[in-house]
Amino acid sequence: MLAPNRLQSCRAPNGTERGNPRSKVGKREFPFDPGASLLLTDLYELNMVQAYLDAGMTDTAVFEFFVRKLPASRGFLMAAGLEQAVAFLKTARVSEAEQRWLAESGRFRDNTLDYLADFHFTGDLHAMPEGTVFFPDEPIARITAPLPEAQLLESRLINLLHFQTVIASKAARMVLASQDRALVDFGLRRAHGSEAGLLAARASYIAGFAASATTPAEWLYGVPITGTMAHSFIQAHDDEAAAFLAFARSRPDNVVLLLDTYDTETAAHSVVRIAPILAGEGIELRGVRLDSGDLAEEARLVRGILDRGGLTSVQIFASGGVDEDLLQRYASQNAPIDGYGIGTSLTTSSDAPALDCAYKLQEYSGQPKRKLSTGKATWPGRKQVFRRYGSDGTMVGDVLTLEGQAGDGEALIQPVLINGKRIQPEPDLQDSRAHAASQLDLLPPHLKRLESAPAYPVMVAESVKALAEQADSVRPGS
Amino acid sequence: MLAPNRLQSCRAPNGTERGNPRSKVGKREFPFDPGASLLLTDLYELNMVQAYLDAGMTDTAVFEFFVRKLPASRGFLMAAGLEQAVAFLKTARVSEAEQRWLAESGRFRDNTLDYLADFHFTGDLHAMPEGTVFFPDEPIARITAPLPEAQLLESRLINLLHFQTVIASKAARMVLASQDRALVDFGLRRAHGSEAGLLAARASYIAGFAASATTPAEWLYGVPITGTMAHSFIQAHDDEAAAFLAFARSRPDNVVLLLDTYDTETAAHSVVRIAPILAGEGIELRGVRLDSGDLAEEARLVRGILDRGGLTSVQIFASGGVDEDLLQRYASQNAPIDGYGIGTSLTTSSDAPALDCAYKLQEYSGQPKRKLSTGKATWPGRKQVFRRYGSDGTMVGDVLTLEGQAGDGEALIQPVLINGKRIQPEPDLQDSRAHAASQLDLLPPHLKRLESAPAYPVMVAESVKALAEQADSVRPGS
Repeated sequence: MLAPNRLQSCRAPNGTERGNPRSKVGKREFPFDPGASLLLTDLYELNMVQAYLDAGMTDTAVFEFFVRKLPASRGFLMAAGLEQAVAFLKTARVSEAEQRWLAESGRFRDNTLDYLADFHFTGDLHAMPEGTVFFPDEPIARITAPLPEAQLLESRLINLLHFQTVIASKAARMVLASQDRALVDFGLRRAHGSEAGLLAARASYIAGFAASATTPAEWLYGVPITGTMAHSFIQAHDDEAAAFLAFARSRPDNVVLLLDTYDTETAAHSVVRIAPILAGEGIELRGVRLDSGDLAEEARLVRGILDRGGLTSVQIFASGGVDEDLLQRYASQNAPIDGYGIGTSLTTSSDAPALDCAYKLQEYSGQPKRKLSTGKATWPGRKQVFRRYGSDGTMVGDVLTLEGQAGDGEALIQPVLINGKRIQPEPDLQDSRAHAASQLDLLPPHLKRLESAPAYPVMVAESVKALAEQADSVRPGS
Repeated sequence: MLAPNRLQSCRAPNGTERGNPRSKVGKREFPFDPGASLLLTDLYELNMVQAYLDAGMTDTAVFEFFVRKLPASRGFLMAAGLEQAVAFLKTARVSEAEQRWLAESGRFRDNTLDYLADFHFTGDLHAMPEGTVFFPDEPIARITAPLPEAQLLESRLINLLHFQTVIASKAARMVLASQDRALVDFGLRRAHGSEAGLLAARASYIAGFAASATTPAEWLYGVPITGTMAHSFIQAHDDEAAAFLAFARSRPDNVVLLLDTYDTETAAHSVVRIAPILAGEGIELRGVRLDSGDLAEEARLVRGILDRGGLTSVQIFASGGVDEDLLQRYASQNAPIDGYGIGTSLTTSSDAPALDCAYKLQEYSGQPKRKLSTGKATWPGRKQVFRRYGSDGTMVGDVLTLEGQAGDGEALIQPVLINGKRIQPEPDLQDSRAHAASQLDLLPPHLKRLESAPAYPVMVAESVKALAEQADSVRPGS
């Protein structure tokens, strides 16, 4: 058995055991910013850097990030997370406190400690813009940098690009299925930690969500935020109608009343009763929210009560277990629901919470590279994706080819950082959102539906296949 | 339709529109620590605080966090995340920069702005210790605090308790299924953001994992860390055996060689060939890693090659798509695998990435409260869980009762913070891990298996049912 103390023990160069982490169980009290620390990485990246430096292997490496295959319930993916990846590349450092921890751990020699202390990204980043639709085997990001640099960045780059791509791809399905209803991200509470909650607000907004309930998404990213009341607000009051009145008077600009705490029908009648009172005070009801039961059925019931009470302009907002299948069903039923709050299914991408993605070495020191592992073989070299469109503007097929080769259609991969510096202004989030909307618009009709459909055609150019043969021929594995 | 600009616009008390966030699209450049910001919350919590303060509703509220029902593939859950929740309760503040943002947003009046500026948690926290096994309807945490305080904490408390509970519960299944193999968390790259990667390392360690690959988990939590090499290391070299030698010489204390970059059988023969060379240099091979194909079959092939080459003590470590079902299958097949690296399935809890959990108001100002929403009714009051054990020590059943009532068995919910102060020393993570191990030991045998089984009995005490009737009788909803 691989006993953990053997797995993680470390002998210093002089042969004495030191730095056994088990003797240091407990919390280090030093500042740690996971958003900017280069040490938010798998330990093996650091081990490999030590070995690369020992061998003088610091030539230029090319790594590409791509998805191997689609989850069963996806016909396309939407790239997102690039701006966070750029921020990481530009700011990733090892702080002085972290440098001390590294030295004390006894795991690394001076060449590596010095390298990490001086680290800053000096390489290039090429990528598809956020909001771009993409398919398996198509790289959405490429790092070109000295081998230890490109290696060290692996874990966090995947972490950032994978998650927002997961969320944008899920959100895009919801946007397509909802037929123009306003969708709001309610997912913070069941997101996997703080960063997931924040980045899901951003990624879903790119994909076409209208807003998020997560407060900091406004000042961090410029995502519109919205929110009304919880059941606890109603419960804390002795009387539901009194709770409605108190809330409306305190928050008169966005009065959306939650109806299902006790009995939805009773609550809807209360709304009809108090609406004129509030109107007399100059307060307009914006909407009501349903959060349980069969939302379409409840919405029809409530719509009827509100309409008969003269509240035809009061909107109905629904939440609670909504996903793209329900959105499509409610849309097809013409359920009188004007907008949705969507939490868990969005923020965890519950049917496909991860993608089979990889960040793989495609070239080192001018030589093409690829792995041949069963089921995980990769295409070598620096690649470009060309996309062709039909006469009506619809996407008709992509070609995976080598960078620098002529191609037919639109080149999807663009330079973002050259020698560590951004070469174009940071795109506005609204522009990424507009790009995403136009991408969804251009999808082939069968990919706009939720049902599984024939795969979108991605052709691998002969030049790529020839390079793979070349890579295989020079690999002396035996 | 709920247009987003209507949903999130806000009129100041004097009636003029101000603070429309759409005019502020872009990033605020002020320090934001999501781990300590009270504003990492849903906007509706802030809206409700405004309404509570306007109405003078600041009496004591009791909220409990519990799971409504188990995912289909879970027979029990394991509580985790309490220490992060405690840290949040003790440190949650609104920074001065955030106060300025709040004021400028125009959304809130001075009473709320002042309240938020002065916020610190003054209430009580009762909870099950981390590592405790629990079942639906059993609260694992209870907040007793002035209503606006308890309300404000909702989103982030759920976010923290939910995620680590998801991960510990998933990891516990893997620990049970693996039959004492060493399990290592490889999940950072596909975790949902940085915090998820870090906290998954912690939660899986509590549940019995041996180590994590995520570097900061050592200094943040005292989790042992481990790591070897990636395919890129092999690919970057011109020769696989040369790569093995270079790595072993650079990292001689934990030599685990990755075999499946090109051809596993060839690589295993290379290992046999280089082992004596390395032994001559005083370097011992610890193990090899397989990362693709049928891991059990590959392991048998490699075990044979290694054994015939005299390397009987070299261990076999497997990774790549491993989950608890595969762990159980490989264990039942006696696959010669000594340890596993587990990424995606653990860190996203891929079959059940979220729990149907809630943080609900159970009492306000001395009155029991509950909601009656379809399918989401709750039990009111401050509750305790008693657990009974059979003569062999096995758990036989729980009773959900009211705090302060006598019960048969072990009381699972304990005071943690009183008046905002911790009343016992912070538990060592090793103690939580030992507690989790003993909990898994005491599970009824049918819950130790992965297959679905009869539900564990949780009885609701008559006192709880009587309190629910009382809550319903005083609720004037009509």
